[in-house]
Amino acid sequence: MAQRYGEIRARSLVLAAPLSAEDQCIQSMSDASPTKWHLAHTSWFFEAMVLGPLAPGYVPFDERFSYLFNSYYEALGPRHPRPQRGLLTRPTLVQVLAYRAHVDTGVQDFMATCDEMAWRRALPLLTLGLHHEQQHQELILTDILHALSCNPTLPAYQCAAASSHKPALRVAPVTAPLHWVTGRTGTAAIGHDGSGFAFDNETPRHRVLLSPYRMADRLVTCGEYLQFIEDGGYRRPELWLSDGWAAVQANGWSCPLYWLAPHDARAPAGDWQVFGLSGVGALDTSAPVSQVSFYEAAAFAEWAGARLPTEFEWETAFDAPGMTQMTGYAWQWTRSSYGPYPGFHPLAGAAGEYNGKFMVGQMVLRGGSSATPLGHTRPSYRNFFPPGARWQFSGIRLARDA
Amino acid sequence: MAQRYGEIRARSLVLAAPLSAEDQCIQSMSDASPTKWHLAHTSWFFEAMVLGPLAPGYVPFDERFSYLFNSYYEALGPRHPRPQRGLLTRPTLVQVLAYRAHVDTGVQDFMATCDEMAWRRALPLLTLGLHHEQQHQELILTDILHALSCNPTLPAYQCAAASSHKPALRVAPVTAPLHWVTGRTGTAAIGHDGSGFAFDNETPRHRVLLSPYRMADRLVTCGEYLQFIEDGGYRRPELWLSDGWAAVQANGWSCPLYWLAPHDARAPAGDWQVFGLSGVGALDTSAPVSQVSFYEAAAFAEWAGARLPTEFEWETAFDAPGMTQMTGYAWQWTRSSYGPYPGFHPLAGAAGEYNGKFMVGQMVLRGGSSATPLGHTRPSYRNFFPPGARWQFSGIRLARDA
Amino acid sequence: MAQRYGEIRARSLVLAAPLSAEDQCIQSMSDASPTKWHLAHTSWFFEAMVLGPLAPGYVPFDERFSYLFNSYYEALGPRHPRPQRGLLTRPTLVQVLAYRAHVDTGVQDFMATCDEMAWRRALPLLTLGLHHEQQHQELILTDILHALSCNPTLPAYQCAAASSHKPALRVAPVTAPLHWVTGRTGTAAIGHDGSGFAFDNETPRHRVLLSPYRMADRLVTCGEYLQFIEDGGYRRPELWLSDGWAAVQANGWSCPLYWLAPHDARAPAGDWQVFGLSGVGALDTSAPVSQVSFYEAAAFAEWAGARLPTEFEWETAFDAPGMTQMTGYAWQWTRSSYGPYPGFHPLAGAAGEYNGKFMVGQMVLRGGSSATPLGHTRPSYRNFFPPGARWQFSGIRLARDA
Amino acid sequence: MAQRYGEIRARSLVLAAPLSAEDQCIQSMSDASPTKWHLAHTSWFFEAMVLGPLAPGYVPFDERFSYLFNSYYEALGPRHPRPQRGLLTRPTLVQVLAYRAHVDTGVQDFMATCDEMAWRRALPLLTLGLHHEQQHQELILTDILHALSCNPTLPAYQCAAASSHKPALRVAPVTAPLHWVTGRTGTAAIGHDGSGFAFDNETPRHRVLLSPYRMADRLVTCGEYLQFIEDGGYRRPELWLSDGWAAVQANGWSCPLYWLAPHDARAPAGDWQVFGLSGVGALDTSAPVSQVSFYEAAAFAEWAGARLPTEFEWETAFDAPGMTQMTGYAWQWTRSSYGPYPGFHPLAGAAGEYNGKFMVGQMVLRGGSSATPLGHTRPSYRNFFPPGARWQFSGIRLARDA
Repeated sequence: MAQRYGEIRARSLVLAAPLSAEDQCIQSMSDASPTKWHLAHTSWFFEAMVLGPLAPGYVPFDERFSYLFNSYYEALGPRHPRPQRGLLTRPTLVQVLAYRAHVDTGVQDFMATCDEMAWRRALPLLTLGLHHEQQHQELILTDILHALSCNPTLPAYQCAAASSHKPALRVAPVTAPLHWVTGRTGTAAIGHDGSGFAFDNETPRHRVLLSPYRMADRLVTCGEYLQFIEDGGYRRPELWLSDGWAAVQANGWSCPLYWLAPHDARAPAGDWQVFGLSGVGALDTSAPVSQVSFYEAAAFAEWAGARLPTEFEWETAFDAPGMTQMTGYAWQWTRSSYGPYPGFHPLAGAAGEYNGKFMVGQMVLRGGSSATPLGHTRPSYRNFFPPGARWQFSGIRLARDA
Repeated sequence: MAQRYGEIRARSLVLAAPLSAEDQCIQSMSDASPTKWHLAHTSWFFEAMVLGPLAPGYVPFDERFSYLFNSYYEALGPRHPRPQRGLLTRPTLVQVLAYRAHVDTGVQDFMATCDEMAWRRALPLLTLGLHHEQQHQELILTDILHALSCNPTLPAYQCAAASSHKPALRVAPVTAPLHWVTGRTGTAAIGHDGSGFAFDNETPRHRVLLSPYRMADRLVTCGEYLQFIEDGGYRRPELWLSDGWAAVQANGWSCPLYWLAPHDARAPAGDWQVFGLSGVGALDTSAPVSQVSFYEAAAFAEWAGARLPTEFEWETAFDAPGMTQMTGYAWQWTRSSYGPYPGFHPLAGAAGEYNGKFMVGQMVLRGGSSATPLGHTRPSYRNFFPPGARWQFSGIRLARDA
Repeated sequence: MAQRYGEIRARSLVLAAPLSAEDQCIQSMSDASPTKWHLAHTSWFFEAMVLGPLAPGYVPFDERFSYLFNSYYEALGPRHPRPQRGLLTRPTLVQVLAYRAHVDTGVQDFMATCDEMAWRRALPLLTLGLHHEQQHQELILTDILHALSCNPTLPAYQCAAASSHKPALRVAPVTAPLHWVTGRTGTAAIGHDGSGFAFDNETPRHRVLLSPYRMADRLVTCGEYLQFIEDGGYRRPELWLSDGWAAVQANGWSCPLYWLAPHDARAPAGDWQVFGLSGVGALDTSAPVSQVSFYEAAAFAEWAGARLPTEFEWETAFDAPGMTQMTGYAWQWTRSSYGPYPGFHPLAGAAGEYNGKFMVGQMVLRGGSSATPLGHTRPSYRNFFPPGARWQFSGIRLARDA
Repeated sequence: MAQRYGEIRARSLVLAAPLSAEDQCIQSMSDASPTKWHLAHTSWFFEAMVLGPLAPGYVPFDERFSYLFNSYYEALGPRHPRPQRGLLTRPTLVQVLAYRAHVDTGVQDFMATCDEMAWRRALPLLTLGLHHEQQHQELILTDILHALSCNPTLPAYQCAAASSHKPALRVAPVTAPLHWVTGRTGTAAIGHDGSGFAFDNETPRHRVLLSPYRMADRLVTCGEYLQFIEDGGYRRPELWLSDGWAAVQANGWSCPLYWLAPHDARAPAGDWQVFGLSGVGALDTSAPVSQVSFYEAAAFAEWAGARLPTEFEWETAFDAPGMTQMTGYAWQWTRSSYGPYPGFHPLAGAAGEYNGKFMVGQMVLRGGSSATPLGHTRPSYRNFFPPGARWQFSGIRLARDA
C-alpha cells in the first residue's frame, strides 16, 4: 500500500509539472477547479478522512485548509465557495506542495505505525483516497485544458513529444467500418462483482432484463461527426432533445467544444482543427470524437438512425467478442440517468457524500478516456456529468434495437 | 366521439369560468401559462394537427394564431416566446372564445362529413387532442393557482362551496396508520397493455426485473410533513440530494409552496395554513401533502428512513390489495428519471414532439391529482416534471427495500 | 380647485378607455406599469397624502391598497415589488374604478367641508397630486405603447381617427432647413420664477454662467435620423459614449425603439415604418424622431458635428425668437445629469421622496411631448430618465458652441 | 524625459514586487484587472501610441499583444474581453516583464535618436503615457487589495514595516474638531490653467458661478463613520438616494468595503478592524474613512446634516486657508456628475478615447489618495467612478450651504 500510495500521489505532481504557478491558479468556469486546488483538495481528503480521525497526534498543516479545500462535504463543515477557487493565490503553489508533503509524511508514518484495528478502519479510506486522487488526475487535465482554451493564444499544456499522459500502448485508431455487435439479452448481472475496489454507486450487484440490442464495435469518429455537422446537424431541431436544442441556441454551439472551424482567427488554417493538450492540430478524422455533451451525443445518434446504449447494455457488452475502444479513448455517454441501484446504500460517515447525493440530474458515462489513469476504471465504473457538460473527454458509442 | 369532444372541450370553459379576463391573461412565471393561452393553444392543436392537414376547405380563424399559440412544435414553425405569453392581451379573451367556437365547428363538421380514409387518419389525432386538452385542464388550475399565489391578497380561484373541480366521490382522507404493502417481485410487465388510449411514452410494453420492495398504502400527510419541518428537515443538508440542498438555500424554501407559516402577514393566523383553489384555509393534517418538489419528496423519504418508489414498482403495485390513494389525490414523485422505454419510438409527424423530446432532466410522477380530469389517468400513465418543480399537485408515497 | 380636480382625474379615465381590462393589467417590463396600476396609484397618492392625514373620518377603501399601490415612498411603509405589478389581477379593474370614485368622493367632500387650516395644508398636496396625476397620464401612454409593442400582432392603442391624445392645434411638422439660434450668454437665471406650481427640483432659482452657444430651432427629424442610420451610425463606435456603445452591442440596437425596418415580419412593407399609438404607419421623415435613448441622441449629435444642449442652455433659449417645437412634440435629452440645484431642499414629509432621491444616474430632459397633458409643462420643468431609457417620447435637439 | 520615463516605469515594478506570479495573474471582479495585465497594458500604451506610429523600424514584441492588452480603444482594433483578463496565464509574468523591457528599450532608443519633428509629435504622447502609467500604479494597488480581500485568509499585500507606498511625510492624522471653511463665491475659474500637464477633461478653463458655501477642513474619519453605522445608517432609507438604498439591500452593505465587524470569522477580534495593504489591523478612528461608494458618502452627508461639495466648490477651496487633507489621503466624492466642460474637445486620434467617452453615468472624485503616486494629482484633476464603486481609496469631505 505504501508503494502504491507513493506512486499515485507522485503522478499528480507529474501532471502538474508542465504548468506554471500562474496556470495552476486559475479557474476558467465554476465547474472547473485550479490545478493547485486539485493538488490541495486531494491531500485534504487524506487529512480529513484518515489522519484527522485515525492518526493520534497528527498536527494539521494549517487549520484554515479544511475550509479552503473541502469540496462538498457538508458533514465536514463550511467551505470556500466553489466559484471562487480561482481567487486563492494564497496559499501559494509552494505552500500547497509543502502541504502535500506534510500529508504524505503523515500517511506514510501512520501506515508504518498504526495498529491492526486502526488499519482495518483506515484501509478502505486510504483506498478510496487513492481512487479519489486518480479521479482528480483526470480533472486536472480536463480543467486546465478548458482554462487554456479560454486564452486566445491557445497555448499547449505540453508539446506533443512529451505527452506523458498518453499511454504508450494505445495506438492511433484507424477507421474501420463500424460493425454492430449483438448483445446478450435476457437477465444480466450489473454492478461490481466484489473483487477489488469499487465505488458505492456500483453496488449492489443486481440483475436487469435486457431487450435485444446491438452495439457499435467502436466509437464515433471525428470524420463521422463532421458529416453530421456538414449535414446541418446543429441547425435541425428535429434531431435534438428539447433541452439540447435550447442549449444549442443559447450557447451558439456549432461543433464540439475544442474544434476550430476553418479560418478561426486564433489559429488560421484552411481546414478544421482541434485544440488539445498538445495545442492546436489538424482534425484527425479517424480519431474518436470527444468533448461533446450528452445532448450532442443523442442528436448525433438520432441523425445516424441509432441511439445511445443504456449503461446496462454497455456493461453487458463490455467483453463481447469484437468490441473495441471500450476504455482508454473517451468516456461514453449512455442513455441512462444516474440513479441508485436497487438496494443502494451510501458509505457510512462523510464518505457517504461521495456519490449518492449527486444521483439526480446527471447522465451516466461509461468506459474511460485517454486522460484517465491507467487501471482506474472497470466495466462496472459509473462516471456521471450533467447532460450539457462538454469539457470532459466524452465521446459517443452507438446502439440499436436488434 | 362528437359527444365526447363536446363534453371535454366544454369542461375547459367551465374551469375558466370563475376567472376574469384579467385573471386569464397573466403569466406568473415562465413555466406557467395564462388561462387564455391554454384555451387558445388547445384549440390550435386541433387546427394544426387535424383541420389544417385533413379538412379540405377549412379556413383558419386567424393566420397569426399559428405563431401565437404553438407551444413547442418545431416542425410547425416559429412561435411566440414562452416567457412572453402573458403579454398577449390581444387577441382578447372574447376573441379566443370565438376561436374556440370556430375550431369546434370545424371539428364537428369534419367529423360529420369526412370520408373513411380521412377518419382513420384523424381519429388518433382527435383522441390525442382530447387527452391533450385534459392535460391542459389540470395546468389551467395549477397555473392560475400559482398566479393567484403571487398576489399578496391571496384571492381564491373560487369559493369552497363551488369547488366544481373536486370530484364528488373523493372523500376527505382520514389518517390511518401507514401500512407497508409488499410488492410483487421478479419480472413484471410495464407499460400500456394496448386497450384504449395511451401516450407513446407508455410504450412499448416490456418486462422489468423487480427486487423485493414494500410500498406505503397511502400518501404522506400534511401532518407527517409538518413533523419533518419541525424536526429541522429544511436545515439538515444530510437529508438532501446535492441539487436539492442547493435549491433550498438559493430559494429559501422552508415548507411546501403554498403553506403559510403562523403569523404570515398575508393572512395572519396562529397556526399553519395552506393556500389553495378555495383560498386560504387551516392546514388539514390528514390531507396528503402536495406542491412539493422531487427534492423535498426525496429528503422527506430520507428523513423517514424510507425511499421513493421507482415508477416500475409503483405501476406494479397499482392494484395490490390494500393500496389506496393511487390516483385522484396527488401526483406521486418516483425515483425514476423520465426516459424512453426499450424500443420506444415517438409518433410520426408533428405529434412525435409530444413526449419524446423531453426525455432528459425530468422525473416521472405517477397517479393523478385532485385537479386531474376524471378518467384521464391510467396505471401506465407517466407524468414528468423537473425535480425542482413545486407548483403541481405533487405529493409523496414512500417505499422501502423489503 | 374642485373643477380642476374633476377634469384632470377624468382625463386619466379617458386615456384608459380604449383599453380592455386585459390590456390594463399587464406589465411588459419592470420600468413600466400596468394602466390599472397607474389608475390606482394616483388615487392612492391622494389617499395617502391628503385624505389619510387631513380628512377626519375618512375610511380607506381597502386597507391593503396602501401596500399594493405605494410606488416608492419608504416613509409610507412596505410595498408590492415593482416588477410584480402585472400580477395584480385582483383588485379587478372594476374594483380599481370603484376605488377611484371612492377617493374622488372623499376629496370633493374634504374640499367642500374642510376648515381654513386644513385647506392651507391640503392645497399644496392636492396641487401636487394633480401634477402627479398628469405625469402618470403620460406614463399610461408610454407604458401601454411598450406593452402593445411586445405583441407580435402590433395592435393599436386606438385607431388614428380617434387619437384624442393629440392636441388639435399641433399641426404636422414640415421639415424646414434647420437654423441655429444664438443663445444669450453671460449669467442667466435658472429655475422656477415663483409664479404658479413647480416641483421642488426646479428650485431654488439661481444664476449660472453660460458660454457662447447656438441651438437648433427645431427638433431632429426622422428623415435626418434615417441618414444617421444609413451612414452606419449604429456600427461606428467612435460616435458613441462607451456605455452607449455597450448598450448597442448588448441589445442589438439598430434604430429607434418602435421603428420597423423594411420587411419586418410583423408588418411587412418595402420601406421603414413606425409603430405608435395608432398602430403601424409609414415613417414620416418630417416628424421629430422619438423613442431614442440619451446614448442615441448623443451619438447622433456627434455624427452631426454638434452636441446636445445643457439644460441651462435649453431653458435660457426657451423663448428665443425663431425657436420652435420646444414643447408638445418630444421630450429633449440634454447633456445635463439630473442633480440638485444649489441650495435645493426636498419638500417636507413623504412628498420629499418625490424627486430628490432620484438625483443620481439620470439625465435631464426638457420640453414635453405629444403625450404630455396640455398645460403640464413649463420652461423650468425637469424631466429625467436613465440614459438608456428608450420607451418615452424622447427626441433630439442639437446645440453647438458659438 | 528619459530619466523621468525610467523612474516612473520602474515604480510599477516596485509596486508589483511583493506579489507572486499567482497574485499577479488573478482578476477578482470585472472592474479590476490583474497586476500582470496592468504591467503589460501600460507597456502596450507606449507601443501603440508612440513606437508603432512614430518609431521607424520598431518591431513589436508579439503581434498578439495588441489584442490581449488593449483596454478599450476601439480605434486600435478588437481586444480581449475585460472580464476574462484573469484567464491569461500566458503570456507568463516573465514574458510580460520581458515585454516591458523590450518596450522600454524601444522608447529610450527612440528618444535618443528621433528627429525634431518626431519629437514634437511624441512628447505629448510620452507624457500622457507616463501619467497613464501612474494611474495604473494606483489601480495595481486597489485591484490587488480587492483580490486579496476575496481570500478568506486575508493575506497582506506587504507587511506594515515595508509599506513603500506610503509617502514618508504623510503623518498619521489626529482627529481635530471639524471646522467649516467659507468658500469664495461669485465667479470662479475652473479647470487647468495651462502650466504643466493636464488631461483633456480638465479643459477648457472656464468660469462658473458659485453660491455661498462652506467646506469641512478635513475628511470624515472612521470614528465619525462608525457613529453613522451605530446610528442605523445602513438601515434608514430616508438617508439614501434611491439607487443607493437599492444597492444597500441588493448587496447587504453594512459598513465600508474592507471593514470587519467584531467577531468576523476571518480574523476574530472583539472590535472593528480594517483590511488594508498591510493586512488586518484595528480600526483607527482618527483615520479618514475610505473604500466607500458615492451612495454611502451621500447618505453619510445627509445623516450629518450636510452635503457633498460640487467639484467646482472643491477646486475653488483647494488652497483656502486652513484646508487640510485635500490630497494624499483619499479621493473625495463630489456631488458632480462627470461631464464635459463647456467647449470640451477630446484629444485627436486614439488618445481621444482616453477620457471623453466615459462622460456619462459616473461621479467626479477630487484630490488623491495614499495610493496615488506623489506628484500625480493637481487641483484641477478629475477622477471618476460609477456611484456604486467601493474598491477605490475613496472617502468623504462634507460641505454646506453658507
